[in-house]
Amino acid sequence: MSIPHFKKYIASLRVAEGKKFSLKKFDTAYNPKGIDKEEGLRMMQESTLKLAELQDKLYAQDKYSVLIVFQAMDAAGKDGAVKHVMTNLSPQGVRVSNFKVPSSNELDHDYFWRHYKALPARGEIGIFNRSHYENVLVTRVHPEYILGENLPNITKLSDINDAFWHSRFKQIRRFENNIIENGTVVMKFFLHLSKEEQKNRFIERIDNPSKNWKFSLGDLKERLLWDNYQAAYEEMIAKTATEDAPWFVIPADNKWSARLAISEIILQEFSKLKIQYPQVSAAQKAALLKAKEQLLAE
Amino acid sequence: MSIPHFKKYIASLRVAEGKKFSLKKFDTAYNPKGIDKEEGLRMMQESTLKLAELQDKLYAQDKYSVLIVFQAMDAAGKDGAVKHVMTNLSPQGVRVSNFKVPSSNELDHDYFWRHYKALPARGEIGIFNRSHYENVLVTRVHPEYILGENLPNITKLSDINDAFWHSRFKQIRRFENNIIENGTVVMKFFLHLSKEEQKNRFIERIDNPSKNWKFSLGDLKERLLWDNYQAAYEEMIAKTATEDAPWFVIPADNKWSARLAISEIILQEFSKLKIQYPQVSAAQKAALLKAKEQLLAE
Repeated sequence: MSIPHFKKYIASLRVAEGKKFSLKKFDTAYNPKGIDKEEGLRMMQESTLKLAELQDKLYAQDKYSVLIVFQAMDAAGKDGAVKHVMTNLSPQGVRVSNFKVPSSNELDHDYFWRHYKALPARGEIGIFNRSHYENVLVTRVHPEYILGENLPNITKLSDINDAFWHSRFKQIRRFENNIIENGTVVMKFFLHLSKEEQKNRFIERIDNPSKNWKFSLGDLKERLLWDNYQAAYEEMIAKTATEDAPWFVIPADNKWSARLAISEIILQEFSKLKIQYPQVSAAQKAALLKAKEQLLAE
Repeated sequence: MSIPHFKKYIASLRVAEGKKFSLKKFDTAYNPKGIDKEEGLRMMQESTLKLAELQDKLYAQDKYSVLIVFQAMDAAGKDGAVKHVMTNLSPQGVRVSNFKVPSSNELDHDYFWRHYKALPARGEIGIFNRSHYENVLVTRVHPEYILGENLPNITKLSDINDAFWHSRFKQIRRFENNIIENGTVVMKFFLHLSKEEQKNRFIERIDNPSKNWKFSLGDLKERLLWDNYQAAYEEMIAKTATEDAPWFVIPADNKWSARLAISEIILQEFSKLKIQYPQVSAAQKAALLKAKEQLLAE
């Protein structure tokens, strides 16, 4: 597969409108023909260096922020993807947030609250390793967790109906609209893993003592709910993919090609922004010269 | 004025829909006939005690939070109103936030960010002394401040047009919708002061050495922009008053009657919530008994 074909392929992973979205139509495996692992790694190196340049301008311009969201099943490669995206970036301008089970103080606020606090500042890149989307994923599969949020009018499982989820999707669109309109660029990645490949990776985590810590018995329990999760992901993407806050469905069975796709997509979306180093006006220049005079006269 | 008449009067201060809203139709002075100051203070004492009871249930139920917003011109009595609302409440369950000029870290985020972080937790009452509404008030009168927010596509004063403010009002409605749908009750108070009474209070702050600290020369500068501020308040109320997040326009020339109106309104809005002490289910009771057995057996 040539580079132009690769770009076209990358474009096909973008979901900007969910009306006809079907997760089954997306592959979990992807082995770019004509690009072997060596070539792929070289391309990745190149794109992360370009990304570092853009980050420097983003920081200097201090106008936009970038929010990158990762969601996936266990062992799909989120941590690796986050680590990879950060390669070559200045850590000063990157804010990575891992969201685990909410604390009781966090549960005492609306579900956006802890995510809102973690949003990147202007000039920064924020990475959410799991995100506000867990509130329509893990809670979708385990609606009993919603009862722990102590929401008005939600006192029993039957209250957590379609209308409830419909509201949540709407709330998420509102939330993202607000941050986008105020200068945050939002990219959302779903690492799309096959059930078979998850099994392989779990077995590896069990076999390999240095990977044991990554595995918990709870992971097997969640695996039993595979179909429920896939359905939750599908509806989440369908209901929250928009032109300004698209989802990207990344084939995740192959790690290096998944990371290559992520790199290229971030670079591509980033490049749509008019990022440039700030221009100094004549008046500012005059003020700088005056300041210099004062310094010299000290 | 009898108590039933007073309730009716209180209801007339509520703005839940702004289509025909005109600030000029609202009085700044209010001297409740038939209720003298002594009677007023007694009524206030009663309502703040009832409010304390409701707060206790709110905290125990841990389901709703209450956000009370105060906005007003200088010297309209915001600080006094906040202090008054807090009388008899348990400070543990009240979170007061004063929002001054944003810091550079705050300006580096979207304008909701610092307010979002300060939202009350479930069971809590949050008071915003000035609020997210400053972003359509002080910045409306001084649009050059907006340039300091470094927003995308906003590089010069002419970019800050009607469409810009229209978007902000929409963003504020979205923000409030999201927190309301997740259990926050929102009440917004505008303390409506006359220009004449502001002059009296400024003179008092200058004449009275113990009040000098409350006055700054900047306050006089803002007073020159009185009409601009009134216009900004009027449009803000018109565009953000909703059934679920109403504005209350409180005549503020008379301090005690303003506080009485605020007390009564908070109590009234609060009472619309179905607040009650949490019920212990049979299963929970059984678990409690089991825990007790274990404790006794230690």
